[in-house]
Amino acid sequence: MKTHFLLDPDVVFLNHGSFGATPKPVFAAYQEWQRRLERQPVYFISHELFDHLAHAGEQLGRYVGVPGSDLVFIPNSTFGLNVVARSLQLGPGDEVLTTNHEYGACDNVWHFLSQKQGFRYVQQPITLPVTSAEAIVDELWQGVTPRTRFIFLSHITSATALTFPIADICRRARAAGIITIIDGAHAPGQLPLDLTAIAPDFYFGNTHKWLCSPKGSAFLYARPDQQALIEPLVVGWGWGDGRTLTFGSNFLDYTQWLGTNDLSAYLAVPDAIQFQEEHNWTAVRAQCHTLLRQTMHQIGELTGLPSIYPADSHAGFYHQMATIPLPQLANVEAFKMALLNQFRVEVPIVTWNGRHFIRVSIQAYNTPQDVEVLLEALAVLLPDSAARDEG
Amino acid sequence: MKTHFLLDPDVVFLNHGSFGATPKPVFAAYQEWQRRLERQPVYFISHELFDHLAHAGEQLGRYVGVPGSDLVFIPNSTFGLNVVARSLQLGPGDEVLTTNHEYGACDNVWHFLSQKQGFRYVQQPITLPVTSAEAIVDELWQGVTPRTRFIFLSHITSATALTFPIADICRRARAAGIITIIDGAHAPGQLPLDLTAIAPDFYFGNTHKWLCSPKGSAFLYARPDQQALIEPLVVGWGWGDGRTLTFGSNFLDYTQWLGTNDLSAYLAVPDAIQFQEEHNWTAVRAQCHTLLRQTMHQIGELTGLPSIYPADSHAGFYHQMATIPLPQLANVEAFKMALLNQFRVEVPIVTWNGRHFIRVSIQAYNTPQDVEVLLEALAVLLPDSAARDEG
Repeated sequence: MKTHFLLDPDVVFLNHGSFGATPKPVFAAYQEWQRRLERQPVYFISHELFDHLAHAGEQLGRYVGVPGSDLVFIPNSTFGLNVVARSLQLGPGDEVLTTNHEYGACDNVWHFLSQKQGFRYVQQPITLPVTSAEAIVDELWQGVTPRTRFIFLSHITSATALTFPIADICRRARAAGIITIIDGAHAPGQLPLDLTAIAPDFYFGNTHKWLCSPKGSAFLYARPDQQALIEPLVVGWGWGDGRTLTFGSNFLDYTQWLGTNDLSAYLAVPDAIQFQEEHNWTAVRAQCHTLLRQTMHQIGELTGLPSIYPADSHAGFYHQMATIPLPQLANVEAFKMALLNQFRVEVPIVTWNGRHFIRVSIQAYNTPQDVEVLLEALAVLLPDSAARDEG
Repeated sequence: MKTHFLLDPDVVFLNHGSFGATPKPVFAAYQEWQRRLERQPVYFISHELFDHLAHAGEQLGRYVGVPGSDLVFIPNSTFGLNVVARSLQLGPGDEVLTTNHEYGACDNVWHFLSQKQGFRYVQQPITLPVTSAEAIVDELWQGVTPRTRFIFLSHITSATALTFPIADICRRARAAGIITIIDGAHAPGQLPLDLTAIAPDFYFGNTHKWLCSPKGSAFLYARPDQQALIEPLVVGWGWGDGRTLTFGSNFLDYTQWLGTNDLSAYLAVPDAIQFQEEHNWTAVRAQCHTLLRQTMHQIGELTGLPSIYPADSHAGFYHQMATIPLPQLANVEAFKMALLNQFRVEVPIVTWNGRHFIRVSIQAYNTPQDVEVLLEALAVLLPDSAARDEG
């Protein structure tokens, strides 16, 4: 499978999770859109682009289980949170509830706004190892108060690669009158996604990670009855009395066209969907998960440290990306560079809550041999990398 | 020269002004950056990208006459205005002074914020035809009051293709304690640009128009002593206590990295500068201006309507783009489509202040034959396109 990707064949690439990787036919379609744009830029942007964009939106909508007109393309998930969070009219006395597993850039968005607007951003701890969906929901709900107006959390967390039971959380939040904002950065393509079934109020996710579209492609979904909350983050032709763009709703007009840009990454999303469909991705995912489960087991044998996930792999707490405990390291950056420079292994070393982990991603192009190289590298490097006990 | 570009050879392309066009070697460099990113996305983004971006910023800074560290890459000019305008803490009693020649999307930014914040957005009329720089400055200054905190105006206007005397305006504004925000969407590459000499407080401009870099490349410059005003528009890793990105200043940290994206268009800006330098662009510009001046004269003879610019072409009120009066048309869109469909001429028909104009751009790839086709088309179409006199 690696020949289908543009990845350097000399690198053992176990970090699909950070920025994804794009199959060659998807990348070719992407660059072909760019050439089409250059052939007659005015006609393309004025008469063709928005039809192609609507088509891509429909394809993506079908893939994630909602009408294409309820989602907009955005460059990445963090951008999506900025659109949603900056639209909200929060003030002193309001609370936004989240977990202590969220992506740092997203935490920054909320901290920035809470400084300006005076609301509280409540980071409720979710304890590792997790045991059950019910336990996670209950632990999260310990942070709910009568002032909780929004719940923000990841579908799959970044540092801890943990799948939260968001359907349960969205259901319980709705019953309590709390609006849900779900960060799906790592979800589309890593697991089957049916947003109608999950029923969040707002959901954004990258397509450039696990759906393998080109870098800078993501989407923001808003439930129809919540779309009126959304304001433009980048005001342009789609807002105001002099609006010249009409995509069919304020939500789309306010968010879809942010001035002259190359939107080819968005237009290549249908090619990414097609690539996965043509390559039997349900089976690919299952194979990747099996290899990842073995990898986690083997690393656990090497370190003697327990998993952060329940033993039953069918519980769905991880899929193609797993965060696996390491002994405390003396120097995280040096350890990571040794993996890359001595063993050609690209894999992230994560610090979460002061503890060190390795986050392994298994994508279609990875093989058992990749894992063998990783295990060999860890066996060599770990004994000399431990933090000295200063107790 | 047209063979150096990717433009459809069958189209008489007289609309460089809307979205620019990219020379083949610049486009090749652009797509090669994209392939480099795909080869090892993690290493590229984590260890190479920001050095390349700093290099591109230095090259662009040299080209526009300021240190590279005082500008950031952005996707387009409208985005730049959003960054600046949304950073300002304006309120009731404040006034932002502008002209009635500004780009509609930028007007929308100010209208959006003035509705939220209660300041006045004052659109001072600048009369056509213009007569002198002094007259423009005096007319603008009729809108200045003790409440004027910012002056916002175009370096080269979009609809009327008029170069404002921004150095004079910035000087007078500074003496009056008014901060200047200049929209240079059409300036970089169309005229030599020395931002140190012009001395605006904030200046943003597209490089994808007249500098011919790929779509989605532009910059925002902020004077060092005004950079503290800038807040992040898209909050991410570059803001807050948990900031992990350090480009050397808050200004850069807040604005340069907006989450995972393909920044190849920015990285190709040095190639665009190099292309113009290698092709003797000072001479190219002069030739284009001469052809444009002839074109304007010939269209004036056809319509009998006077120019909006002073007769002396050395006065610098237009360069490679001119807006030329047309008789009132019955149907602007039909007229434009007839030009394109019957004569293969891509040129914008502009409505400004209820009057109709044609905006002709002459770029390196245009020839006298292109202008002949335009003139023939106008000679054929104009007699049947006039609005009926309903008086």
